[in-house]
Amino acid sequence: MPRYKLTVEYDGSDFVGWQRQTNGPSVQAAVEAAIHRFCGADVAIRAAGRTDAGVHALGQVVHADIAGSHPPAVLRDAINAHLRPLPIAVVAAKLAPPGFDARLSATARVYRYCILNRVAPPTLSRERAWHVAARLNAAAMRRAAQSLIGHHDFTTFRASACQARSPVKTLDWIGVARRGDTIRIETRARSFLHHQVRSMVGSLERVGAGKWPEEEIANALAARDRRRAGPTAPACGLYLVRVHYDD
Amino acid sequence: MPRYKLTVEYDGSDFVGWQRQTNGPSVQAAVEAAIHRFCGADVAIRAAGRTDAGVHALGQVVHADIAGSHPPAVLRDAINAHLRPLPIAVVAAKLAPPGFDARLSATARVYRYCILNRVAPPTLSRERAWHVAARLNAAAMRRAAQSLIGHHDFTTFRASACQARSPVKTLDWIGVARRGDTIRIETRARSFLHHQVRSMVGSLERVGAGKWPEEEIANALAARDRRRAGPTAPACGLYLVRVHYDD
Repeated sequence: MPRYKLTVEYDGSDFVGWQRQTNGPSVQAAVEAAIHRFCGADVAIRAAGRTDAGVHALGQVVHADIAGSHPPAVLRDAINAHLRPLPIAVVAAKLAPPGFDARLSATARVYRYCILNRVAPPTLSRERAWHVAARLNAAAMRRAAQSLIGHHDFTTFRASACQARSPVKTLDWIGVARRGDTIRIETRARSFLHHQVRSMVGSLERVGAGKWPEEEIANALAARDRRRAGPTAPACGLYLVRVHYDD
Repeated sequence: MPRYKLTVEYDGSDFVGWQRQTNGPSVQAAVEAAIHRFCGADVAIRAAGRTDAGVHALGQVVHADIAGSHPPAVLRDAINAHLRPLPIAVVAAKLAPPGFDARLSATARVYRYCILNRVAPPTLSRERAWHVAARLNAAAMRRAAQSLIGHHDFTTFRASACQARSPVKTLDWIGVARRGDTIRIETRARSFLHHQVRSMVGSLERVGAGKWPEEEIANALAARDRRRAGPTAPACGLYLVRVHYDD
């Protein structure tokens, strides 16, 4: 059966997250239902990133095995038609290479976190950014973030519910940049622990606010102790930007 | 009575436009109600741009005469508190210079129009951009747009309901740029006719789609005939970005 690689964008605000759950609508269930309406089969799909409730995606990647021979553009348009009016869209579809697995074949994931850093509350960026009223020092956040790059035990920045076998991950890079009232934090790794990006961002915010010295990020990381992390940043500011593969 | 200059941002999706109307909630009425809740007085405010239903603002400018002596930051925060949970925020407040009038003192207005140019429907940019599925040639749109710059009779790009005394306006500049799937059109003039930006964008889209030759923009302008304009682009892609003053 042909396997398709779908790149999916969504506004995660009104979903319980990517993964199918009993407590509300998931992005996965919505996409699977759209595929079902298109081809009549129950197709289980798998995604590169299991985004949490409220987290958005610009380039989530999914694989789906669908019987028959559908031109990828037809599949994309049909799924999108059946997804209406939900804020989920297949932005690209192609036949997957042999052995492709959206989750296991991924060589890197890029996440972006947006902070709206101004006194006035958000309007157009509501549920699209974390609103932080106190002025943050983005340069200090950028300097402090550098200590997170590399191969580390990220226990400090891990959710208590995290199911990963090992807390050791390699952060390829992390950038912090201010543009006007918006601070963007972008980071890449082969994989992340549960809540890792939001936990790192919540800690960097403490540095930006002047509540933590810059070196506290390195110290908290070295401590391998969840109690040393800052508050976990809210889901609404997080975006799965893209997933890399060797193909 | 002190006059304040307020810079206001809003998501126009759920409003009948800036101006107070009988057919639904307006941004003006919401801001006036918030000021009333703060100071107890009926304060009539005036804005630089009377944005239509669905049009957004990043930097609408308003003046308001409010009795008493309020530090501008206190006024800003109080109005924002009373605007909750509406997607309207005062992003800046200051005392206006003598004789300041948000509408009459404006020396230029900058509008941006966003087109999401891809096959897949919008998700995160729903009600924030015009979705055009067919690939547009942004370079052709940019070249064609240059003929709009300068002092012209813009009758072609004027709404039938436009109440301006003269259709002659001076367009300072207009830019068209693609970034990924998004085409942004930005333009500046001292003032615009009703629907002028949306009408110009709707015509430029015809050029981008290859339906009109590039020179048709200049020809349509020269014709001074509304029947020569393309369809008016939808309101949701339009943003009042900022207003310039001499102060």
